[in-house]
Amino acid sequence: MDTGEFDLIAHIRARAGVRADVVLGIGDDAALLQLPAGRHLVVTADTLNAGVHFPEATAPQDIGWKSLAVNLSDLAAMGAEPAWCTLSLSLPASDPAWLDAFLDGFLALARRHGVALIGGDTTRGPLAIAVTAIGTVEPGRALRRDGARVGDDVWVSGTLGDAAAALHLLPMPPADLRERLDRPVPRVELGRRLAGLAHAALDVSDGLIADLGHICRASGVGAEVELDRLPASAALHAYPPSERFAWQATGGDDYELCFTAPAFTRNALAELGVSLALPLTRIGRIVEGAGVLALDVEGRLWPPPRAGYTHF
Amino acid sequence: MDTGEFDLIAHIRARAGVRADVVLGIGDDAALLQLPAGRHLVVTADTLNAGVHFPEATAPQDIGWKSLAVNLSDLAAMGAEPAWCTLSLSLPASDPAWLDAFLDGFLALARRHGVALIGGDTTRGPLAIAVTAIGTVEPGRALRRDGARVGDDVWVSGTLGDAAAALHLLPMPPADLRERLDRPVPRVELGRRLAGLAHAALDVSDGLIADLGHICRASGVGAEVELDRLPASAALHAYPPSERFAWQATGGDDYELCFTAPAFTRNALAELGVSLALPLTRIGRIVEGAGVLALDVEGRLWPPPRAGYTHF
Repeated sequence: MDTGEFDLIAHIRARAGVRADVVLGIGDDAALLQLPAGRHLVVTADTLNAGVHFPEATAPQDIGWKSLAVNLSDLAAMGAEPAWCTLSLSLPASDPAWLDAFLDGFLALARRHGVALIGGDTTRGPLAIAVTAIGTVEPGRALRRDGARVGDDVWVSGTLGDAAAALHLLPMPPADLRERLDRPVPRVELGRRLAGLAHAALDVSDGLIADLGHICRASGVGAEVELDRLPASAALHAYPPSERFAWQATGGDDYELCFTAPAFTRNALAELGVSLALPLTRIGRIVEGAGVLALDVEGRLWPPPRAGYTHF
Repeated sequence: MDTGEFDLIAHIRARAGVRADVVLGIGDDAALLQLPAGRHLVVTADTLNAGVHFPEATAPQDIGWKSLAVNLSDLAAMGAEPAWCTLSLSLPASDPAWLDAFLDGFLALARRHGVALIGGDTTRGPLAIAVTAIGTVEPGRALRRDGARVGDDVWVSGTLGDAAAALHLLPMPPADLRERLDRPVPRVELGRRLAGLAHAALDVSDGLIADLGHICRASGVGAEVELDRLPASAALHAYPPSERFAWQATGGDDYELCFTAPAFTRNALAELGVSLALPLTRIGRIVEGAGVLALDVEGRLWPPPRAGYTHF
């Protein structure tokens, strides 16, 4: 197989899938898309670098999955319906087998959400994957970070801390923890259904406390979180609370949704969790002030060991 | 200055500029954009890697300019009006001075075309810049690659070969050649005005012959190009034809538009070139068959030394 860029692109194009609103996909200077009437466009871009956003030894299928998942997670956190994506892939060398495996993971998740891959490029360079995901949302229905109000409950979906535990336990984490690190599940359907219920939302990527801090800053409020309420998987319960709390509160890479909602929505949210078969857990409340306080089981202030993950 | 990712993002956000249709810009999980009614969306994504797409020693202002320019050039080649962009920036280390200089170049070009920077991310890694540019076009007016017809003239804007010459003459190319390598000018206004005149178009990034070959493949036609008609800058005329022809025909990085148009548009195109103060030169014709033939001044077949630049 010839290994030029054009062959890689032709290969990607052949596998990219179709959508009725893609007038022109991969293969021209740019893609042409038919827009749904009366909706806002929602755009996010996130890059994954080898050794920073995933361990060097990660399987290509998992890298492909995760590079789209973190972007769909951002769309989910806005309450958007995903539609299209671009993929800019830097590879140290042309490797058709690696690319096929990467696309297996990337496109499996794209198909699950009806997302069409419409463009991008392949370049020579250290392994890095830059994805832009584009979706749409009804005007006024987007979940923003700046809508939290004093008295809101703070909620989180799924469980927290598995990915951070897996990272900590490398090179041989338990398989169920590793799965959460390598194959995060973007909460797209939850995001869509939270419009009209939640006041503010984001996805937990840098660690719960750091991310909830973003909501607090944008909304001009504070938050209190009770550590023993943080949802943990069965696998994570095997570890002592001191370690578990750190992974759950500051670990990051969870890609669950954290959102605030007024108390009168509790029943509706409970029903929503049941209908999605996805636990939704009330973990704290929005208060006057600024910043996020984490309280341990006796109500004492818990000092987080670090302020959240940053990429520098 | 703190050097965390959030500070870099806050810094970029403070400089990103505004557009009336940006409902929510940098700072949430994703951007929210108001869409113009009755238009198609045009999306392109191109990455620049240090040492591959620009020499390692390139000034940060020029890297910023070029990383947006190559993407706006793709929108220009579709006849689109640019509107928004995202920027994913991988940096080996946090360097506020470098970032400011980079943004000087990037945002100067964005302002020139009314483009708003709406999102993206900064990550730690080898220097790489992934940009997605988004614009709009009237349905049916996009310049595609697959519309060339036998008998069309082949045209190119501006001049060819300066960037390739500069690359060849590194580390000390003449300043006017270096300017064309570092600061390509996307032909956005030309692209907008070619709708209704041109049958097919693309931007010359990989080399004229290779790029015109894409039009031929997509359109199921062949092309003949006369080397002595290829437009050259005054600076390039200082070099012997053998070198000059190679740079012009196969060099790449020109970011001029190459397009095909029926003969009856010649007068209209001449007037368009005058009104844009941008030379438009007829360099050949679309013929039956396949592939691109380059003919020297005596009408002999010119063997291009290589088939065009690929990134692998």
